[in-house]
Amino acid sequence: MNNLLEKLKPKEDKFFLMLKEMGAIIVSVSDLAVKCVQAASHEEAVELYRQVKEQEQAADLVQTRIFEALNNTFITPFDREDIGQISSTLDDVVDLVNSCAKRITLYKPKALPASAVELAKLVHESAGYLAQALDELDSFKKRPEKIKEYSAQLVTVERKADDVYEEFIIDLFEHEKDAIEVIKLKEILHELERATDAERAVGKIIRTVIIKYS
Amino acid sequence: MNNLLEKLKPKEDKFFLMLKEMGAIIVSVSDLAVKCVQAASHEEAVELYRQVKEQEQAADLVQTRIFEALNNTFITPFDREDIGQISSTLDDVVDLVNSCAKRITLYKPKALPASAVELAKLVHESAGYLAQALDELDSFKKRPEKIKEYSAQLVTVERKADDVYEEFIIDLFEHEKDAIEVIKLKEILHELERATDAERAVGKIIRTVIIKYS
Amino acid sequence: MNNLLEKLKPKEDKFFLMLKEMGAIIVSVSDLAVKCVQAASHEEAVELYRQVKEQEQAADLVQTRIFEALNNTFITPFDREDIGQISSTLDDVVDLVNSCAKRITLYKPKALPASAVELAKLVHESAGYLAQALDELDSFKKRPEKIKEYSAQLVTVERKADDVYEEFIIDLFEHEKDAIEVIKLKEILHELERATDAERAVGKIIRTVIIKYS
Repeated sequence: MNNLLEKLKPKEDKFFLMLKEMGAIIVSVSDLAVKCVQAASHEEAVELYRQVKEQEQAADLVQTRIFEALNNTFITPFDREDIGQISSTLDDVVDLVNSCAKRITLYKPKALPASAVELAKLVHESAGYLAQALDELDSFKKRPEKIKEYSAQLVTVERKADDVYEEFIIDLFEHEKDAIEVIKLKEILHELERATDAERAVGKIIRTVIIKYS
Repeated sequence: MNNLLEKLKPKEDKFFLMLKEMGAIIVSVSDLAVKCVQAASHEEAVELYRQVKEQEQAADLVQTRIFEALNNTFITPFDREDIGQISSTLDDVVDLVNSCAKRITLYKPKALPASAVELAKLVHESAGYLAQALDELDSFKKRPEKIKEYSAQLVTVERKADDVYEEFIIDLFEHEKDAIEVIKLKEILHELERATDAERAVGKIIRTVIIKYS
Repeated sequence: MNNLLEKLKPKEDKFFLMLKEMGAIIVSVSDLAVKCVQAASHEEAVELYRQVKEQEQAADLVQTRIFEALNNTFITPFDREDIGQISSTLDDVVDLVNSCAKRITLYKPKALPASAVELAKLVHESAGYLAQALDELDSFKKRPEKIKEYSAQLVTVERKADDVYEEFIIDLFEHEKDAIEVIKLKEILHELERATDAERAVGKIIRTVIIKYS
């Protein structure tokens, strides 16, 4: 009986807290990414990848807790599907950063271009906006404006990342004559560009939630 | 109160009209793709990609309007999830065509093979069937047969595209000795093959809707 | 009226039987994959791919039957969405194995490394656990422990596959100097690694279903 009451009671705090945890992980992991693309040696990159992987596993655990809570809670602060989608898209961001760091350590490219650093910094910039948007989520009915603003910033950063990635691709095919390096660099930087896409996608879902409840 | 009544009133026309708009965009964008793979110069390809991108942005706007309408309408002409999935898979088609044109302009391949033209024409052929199926959607309860026929055509065209792509891949690995060209051509044509997959997928969802309501 | 009663009657057996069919297909198709990566000649690989494709088409038919049944049944043994997701993720496994065999026959790599055999064997090992988990599914309320154990095994095998794939990638970029071979081998083995991911994902969904109903 107690258990049932527990299940019926809105668990707003729980979900908001877990999503904030995901936001904090994304900030940490993207900070590690900025360091990893600038690593002075293979050993340093390997050590940074180890730290990225720890964050990735932490995100997996939060994600599992969120899904278990969704299955065990009758009333959620907003649509169950939206919470699930926010959580799994946040997890995608972490996976993409992890995949980028992993590829750096496995592929051992001769050198990473300046655009890798630019892209990692953009992933980190978006992570900051996302974390702030997730911090505001528990007051989205009262103050939707701020979240809408963060969501707009995510679009702007993602467009910048697109431009950086496009310039990188043009340059790569024009100047890199070693096909194996082309493969390596293209796949490493692509994960960062996709991370900003996923970050923008989270912003879009959050924005839709706000519109739905306004 | 008026607003509530507005929300309760079935908005059939609205959804059907917006899906028809998506159908028209797919026809236009695939027509541009046929031209883009045959562009006589890099400048022409760039100009065609610019037009493709306009269509891609138009599709994004329709897609956003559809999702906003889904969130604001209590009664939809058929399952909310199905409308959402049709719309987002149509958007995938446009994104894939856009990605193909973008890659042509960024990668600057030495030359595109005849199979690129064949594939673009198949994407365009499927777009025609899709647009017709979407035009029939508002009378799917009365005349399901025609839509089933278009859906069958989408399967046929997708199989043809599979064969063309397979032949292209075999030929590419047999004759192209420049690994960088292999990367470029493979990635450009792959988007067209995936576009026919997405077109077929839309046909399948529409078919399922019809079966559900028959 | 009879039709309505038919629709109302729980069709547990039907769904469990169809999911078991999918499990059997995954065992067969992964067994063919183990043979295909060890094929002594191109002709043998082509013949094995033909058999893989047959299984892939069989899986498509079961998948279609499952979705039609989901649309026509009012009461399902567990959440409709979960049955759909289990079914489509099982189908992903088959598609990935099919794609691997297809690439072997289209790309004609000079030779496949030992890690290809290892990976195919891991896909097959996971297929065994999956098939057993699917066989237990109709008694998941009575005996959840066994399914949880199979699900844990799927995680273990997937991690092994990750390690094998990582070692392969390091080795490939260190020793293979022919960029075209790099592309071919990387893409062929990647599908096998992704197949173990999809197998693990099915285990995770099944585990979630069990927790939901416990």
